[in-house]
Amino acid sequence: MKNPFENANVLITGGLGFIGSNLAIRLVGLGANVTLVDNMLPRQGGNLFNIEPVKGKVHVNFSDIRNALSMNYLVQGKDYVFHLAGQVNHVDSMRNPIQDLDINCKGTLVLLEACHHNNPDARIIFAGTRGEYGKSVHLPVDEEHPTNPVGIYAITNLTAEKMVLVYHNVKGLQGVCLRITNTFGPRHQMMHDEYGVLNWFIRKALDDEAIPVFGDGAILRDFLYVDDLLDGLLAIATTPGAYGDVYNVGTGRGISFRELAETIVAVAGQGRVAHVPFTRERKEVEPGDYVADIRKIQEATGWNPGIPLEEGIRRTVEFYRKYRDHYWKR
Amino acid sequence: MKNPFENANVLITGGLGFIGSNLAIRLVGLGANVTLVDNMLPRQGGNLFNIEPVKGKVHVNFSDIRNALSMNYLVQGKDYVFHLAGQVNHVDSMRNPIQDLDINCKGTLVLLEACHHNNPDARIIFAGTRGEYGKSVHLPVDEEHPTNPVGIYAITNLTAEKMVLVYHNVKGLQGVCLRITNTFGPRHQMMHDEYGVLNWFIRKALDDEAIPVFGDGAILRDFLYVDDLLDGLLAIATTPGAYGDVYNVGTGRGISFRELAETIVAVAGQGRVAHVPFTRERKEVEPGDYVADIRKIQEATGWNPGIPLEEGIRRTVEFYRKYRDHYWKR
Repeated sequence: MKNPFENANVLITGGLGFIGSNLAIRLVGLGANVTLVDNMLPRQGGNLFNIEPVKGKVHVNFSDIRNALSMNYLVQGKDYVFHLAGQVNHVDSMRNPIQDLDINCKGTLVLLEACHHNNPDARIIFAGTRGEYGKSVHLPVDEEHPTNPVGIYAITNLTAEKMVLVYHNVKGLQGVCLRITNTFGPRHQMMHDEYGVLNWFIRKALDDEAIPVFGDGAILRDFLYVDDLLDGLLAIATTPGAYGDVYNVGTGRGISFRELAETIVAVAGQGRVAHVPFTRERKEVEPGDYVADIRKIQEATGWNPGIPLEEGIRRTVEFYRKYRDHYWKR
Repeated sequence: MKNPFENANVLITGGLGFIGSNLAIRLVGLGANVTLVDNMLPRQGGNLFNIEPVKGKVHVNFSDIRNALSMNYLVQGKDYVFHLAGQVNHVDSMRNPIQDLDINCKGTLVLLEACHHNNPDARIIFAGTRGEYGKSVHLPVDEEHPTNPVGIYAITNLTAEKMVLVYHNVKGLQGVCLRITNTFGPRHQMMHDEYGVLNWFIRKALDDEAIPVFGDGAILRDFLYVDDLLDGLLAIATTPGAYGDVYNVGTGRGISFRELAETIVAVAGQGRVAHVPFTRERKEVEPGDYVADIRKIQEATGWNPGIPLEEGIRRTVEFYRKYRDHYWKR
């Protein structure tokens, strides 16, 4: 079977961030010509060390998806555009909603316009969030579930998704949208706890500190290991019939925060679980239980998440034990 | 029964436009202190003649909802903020999506932030569009209907609505959102045909020209006369239990474009119906039949639309016969 990414030209927005850098490493391994664009906005996860394994094998372009002049060039000749750039911090989105709108919505429009005018045949894969659903009215959450976001970050993701679909439906672009569950693994920022809860718990364990579980820790989340997400992104990207639609990505399995913290302590052999009260900022944007219904992407692509939670945690612990100094200072 | 608007302080964004100016006239009649803010963006309907009946009785502030410095002052001391300002042209939103996003989403955020910091007790009434639903999957369309907009204008309205609800739910503001059907009547712009189809049909009739009905004219719309909309806006604004939610406003009755054009010709005694092919730009953003399910607002407020289509058309024809020169040149 032919590897569809061999010699493919790929642009990854947010390419120095968590998912973008892992995707870049995977695509270089598959023989793709990979260009990364990243604005290196502080606290958002952009980190040159993330692409150390493919140093010199990817093109790094420091710019911003809101910069139309840059984007008009960067999209040219690309077969695939993985659009992962975004303001990803829920808490920041409530403190600075206009910046969130600017990056996530205007940035997406600039990218879509750049493709429309310079490369209408590009395949665009947009990474949205399960936050687009808001509070779950049933579990697991399928793609027909109501979308009532509880924070600005989730609204701007939903808006960006709908823009991709309008450009697909009306302007003839090829766009497909994912609503991605909580994802964890190597190369996530570890500087602060404002997003990426599982990775933060791992930092606390590796520092042999208390892992702060809000409330009784009974709220369920669906935690996906990043390598499974990469498989999903590549599966969707190479399924022509998938374009023009929206797909959940997750494991389909709910894990409570308490169980998560206990598992991390057990795998790492360090840290301890501590129950703490919700902060106001967290409580405000906490939508409650979430478990993804992943039948739609499974049926469309044959993709399945294969890495058990414990194994994903083990790999993540191993990565940060080795490279901790590149991610946080003790 | 006390008139709740007597001596009330009211801000109307987009106050020199179609709905805003009609609302201003009504509120002055009810004894309110009315301030209008409008950016007078060309082709969007802002027209000083619109407020001729209340000249000297309202405060007119030329500025832009995107201007935080203005908005921080304008919201102060207001009991009600009717947020009607917006880029309202479907066709323009596809040509210049970034401007549409900027006005409709950033502008709404600036207004919400202004209220949050300067007047958190203001009651905010947001005027959205039935376009937020996109293609109808059932008729009549209730508020639980899926929201899959077919154009950028409808997306940015949906986004603004969700922002109002997040500020209501999370930041403690009082916000209520309407999804308004096609509305017509006096004081609508008559310079071009890019939005406001019923008013445009009336112009063609008054110029004794052909009224251009796209295709076979069988598509259904729900046409609301502006005075009925004003009653709905005031009813929602003064129903405390309505805040934090979304309400359709319409008549609940579907009229085909063909029947509409024939009715206008009959009422005006001028013009003629002509069937013309869809333009590409129109076809792109045409969502098909729409009829509002208005039971939710009826149950919440007791409001009912009372003006028959023919009567609304008669009043509109009369207005433009008298004041044509202020709206278009023959």
